[in-house]
Amino acid sequence: MTEPVTIPVAHPAPRRPHVVIIGGGFAGLQAARALRNAPVQVTLLDRTNHHLFQPLLYQVATASLSPGDIIAPIRWVLRRQQNTFVMLGEVSGIDVVSRTISLAGSGRALTYDYLVLAPGGRHSYFAHPEWETLAPGLKSVEDAAELRRRFLLSFERAELCEDEAERTAYQTIVIVGGGPTGVELAGAIPDIAYKALRRDFRRIDTRRTRVILLEGGDRVLPAFPPDLSARAKRDLESLGVEVRLNSLVTEVHGDRVGVGEETIRTHTVFWAAGNVISPLTALLGAPLDRAGRVLVEPDLSIPGHPEVFVIGDAAHVVCGGRVVPGVAPAAMQQGRSAGRNIARSLAGNARVPFDYFNKGDVATIGRHKAVADFGRFRMTGRFAWWLWLTIHIMYLIGFRNRLTVLIEWAYAYFTYQRGVRLITGATRASDSG
Amino acid sequence: MTEPVTIPVAHPAPRRPHVVIIGGGFAGLQAARALRNAPVQVTLLDRTNHHLFQPLLYQVATASLSPGDIIAPIRWVLRRQQNTFVMLGEVSGIDVVSRTISLAGSGRALTYDYLVLAPGGRHSYFAHPEWETLAPGLKSVEDAAELRRRFLLSFERAELCEDEAERTAYQTIVIVGGGPTGVELAGAIPDIAYKALRRDFRRIDTRRTRVILLEGGDRVLPAFPPDLSARAKRDLESLGVEVRLNSLVTEVHGDRVGVGEETIRTHTVFWAAGNVISPLTALLGAPLDRAGRVLVEPDLSIPGHPEVFVIGDAAHVVCGGRVVPGVAPAAMQQGRSAGRNIARSLAGNARVPFDYFNKGDVATIGRHKAVADFGRFRMTGRFAWWLWLTIHIMYLIGFRNRLTVLIEWAYAYFTYQRGVRLITGATRASDSG
Repeated sequence: MTEPVTIPVAHPAPRRPHVVIIGGGFAGLQAARALRNAPVQVTLLDRTNHHLFQPLLYQVATASLSPGDIIAPIRWVLRRQQNTFVMLGEVSGIDVVSRTISLAGSGRALTYDYLVLAPGGRHSYFAHPEWETLAPGLKSVEDAAELRRRFLLSFERAELCEDEAERTAYQTIVIVGGGPTGVELAGAIPDIAYKALRRDFRRIDTRRTRVILLEGGDRVLPAFPPDLSARAKRDLESLGVEVRLNSLVTEVHGDRVGVGEETIRTHTVFWAAGNVISPLTALLGAPLDRAGRVLVEPDLSIPGHPEVFVIGDAAHVVCGGRVVPGVAPAAMQQGRSAGRNIARSLAGNARVPFDYFNKGDVATIGRHKAVADFGRFRMTGRFAWWLWLTIHIMYLIGFRNRLTVLIEWAYAYFTYQRGVRLITGATRASDSG
Repeated sequence: MTEPVTIPVAHPAPRRPHVVIIGGGFAGLQAARALRNAPVQVTLLDRTNHHLFQPLLYQVATASLSPGDIIAPIRWVLRRQQNTFVMLGEVSGIDVVSRTISLAGSGRALTYDYLVLAPGGRHSYFAHPEWETLAPGLKSVEDAAELRRRFLLSFERAELCEDEAERTAYQTIVIVGGGPTGVELAGAIPDIAYKALRRDFRRIDTRRTRVILLEGGDRVLPAFPPDLSARAKRDLESLGVEVRLNSLVTEVHGDRVGVGEETIRTHTVFWAAGNVISPLTALLGAPLDRAGRVLVEPDLSIPGHPEVFVIGDAAHVVCGGRVVPGVAPAAMQQGRSAGRNIARSLAGNARVPFDYFNKGDVATIGRHKAVADFGRFRMTGRFAWWLWLTIHIMYLIGFRNRLTVLIEWAYAYFTYQRGVRLITGATRASDSG
């Protein structure tokens, strides 16, 4: 089978316009939902079978949550939306002239009338792709399982280590990047190392664990106002995290990280810096920014192709003179906007330009510590922390996920334990770091 | 480092006898606990960092539970037992003359005064090891994730399949082996296929899913009395499972299974037949049975080496003229017996032979369906099913696990959904089956 086939025509006659959405993240899912009642046939294509609630992924990496707690099968989310066909598959090519998408592996193709591209991104290793295996990032469930494995194994290896310098290296965790992911990851580790794991080891003192957060810029959480960045840094330091600003990583090896002249001995490096966009954006022939994001029109379509939309992390959207940040609320709003504009075009109405409504931004740092920025007013400390919890529970998809996450959090809150200390994959303690 | 080193002497003086326990399953963990107050230093060695509640592993495979719900970190379980050192590592050699255990990878070794071997087993592929990748078994968390992946992907592939015969093959699931694992797995699938997934697919009818259970003997659940086997078979059939007795698998391929003359087209084969024991038992130089289990003395030690015990699935134990079955309660009892006999020997007392107390046996088949055998009385149906639930919740380790499992079960019970429909690893729909 190599000839293009239009796959799903659940409502074959009269043929409805076919909208293909690539990506089942926050942006893609909202685009699909916005087309719920539109006279179209939607195909939502994703490489995985699940929508992932990325803002809590770092909690899977730190053994607080199970992957199953923060995913929802895309099919299940859209089960009642009869005009939508969910398809597991990977895109290998996009031809905007013939309006055709090729799928990897199968030799199959899909033709579309409208295309919504919402593929998300990966971390950027700044021209050092070889660092990725040494310092994994945090974008997928598999990434989180790998980080959890390395994080938990570092204690196992330290416990068996005969050499003191080596043991210290095993007890040193370096996080690269001071954005929300890096800060939340760094803030979660001390509580686990100093409290949850303390009684479990016999030879090492887990309270000696060093957590080092390296940020290339001059403050953490650069998307927040400077005073909240300063507060977040103080909060991290009060937990025991070493925050190093203006620290660019120049070398990454299996047993050390270089920061300019300095060398930090460590076997556990996590990458939370820079975003690089899915290679799919390059296939559109549209102008890209330096990070590979597509410079979209005000209605989120690409120049010259009003039938092709790019949304979410892959889009470079300017609203009110500022670039819209790559956060979940922005992605969701873009998804809704693209979906509604498709419906408007089909109804013969004019499109409405995308307008970003900044609902505010919250980042958590550790127990009772968080910073929140709502433009006019700001919040820190205990109240911001509870707010962070409430918002994240609210936005989780599915009652079951909300309940299981609540229970895991309550368990962690009251016992200081972490329930999901599961190492999967190769667990041989003697693996090289 | 290649010279033997005695690793953990947390209480260095006076040197206590060193008990090494290999395996943190039901047997090994109970052996460690039985030595809680004994004047020994215990090292518990496992390849993984967690104790696994194997009786519920099939529920991870069928997307009902998260792996994290049924594991407990071994360190955490034994955190209060100060005479015990938990070690992540894999055994590569055992020398019962020099009383030395070699560890894989590191070149390290442990010396022991007492050895308790509880390595568990794997499935037996009856001289067809090449079948393992085609028809994976269910012994570890990784196995369960692989089964879940294949199970969920079979529906994804059927949904995209253009050829009807091929689609039917994707909607055919074959389970080999009619013991408790095979029966529970087969019984869990119809509810998911016919109810949980029904509304999620647009092109296939998930109610057409065929579940075929192949058993080589003349009844399922051979460890139960014949009337309960018959009941279990009827229960399975009422759910829609095709139960085929006296059906020996003669061929396994990527797209079909051969049963004598017949060929069943399928891409999804799960193996739940026969046990084969860890290769470690062969290193002891002790007599083995046909399955590779060690023929132990009445006190569970091996002939000529009263300081070496073999317990759990790896031991061939005869009690009251019958071979003790490879079930969790038997493993736990053997662990306690071995631990106590070590303590008795150290105190100068005579050992007590192991005596198996059969608490009864329960297997669940599907919603409100189960069989229970307590020797004098038997139970089936709804009451046996609730009993099965209660027992399994009771024996789970940790309050958190009990709570999360209860919630997942309540969710599945009331909504007919399955929460953990997470496919990890390669999810390309076009992978060859």
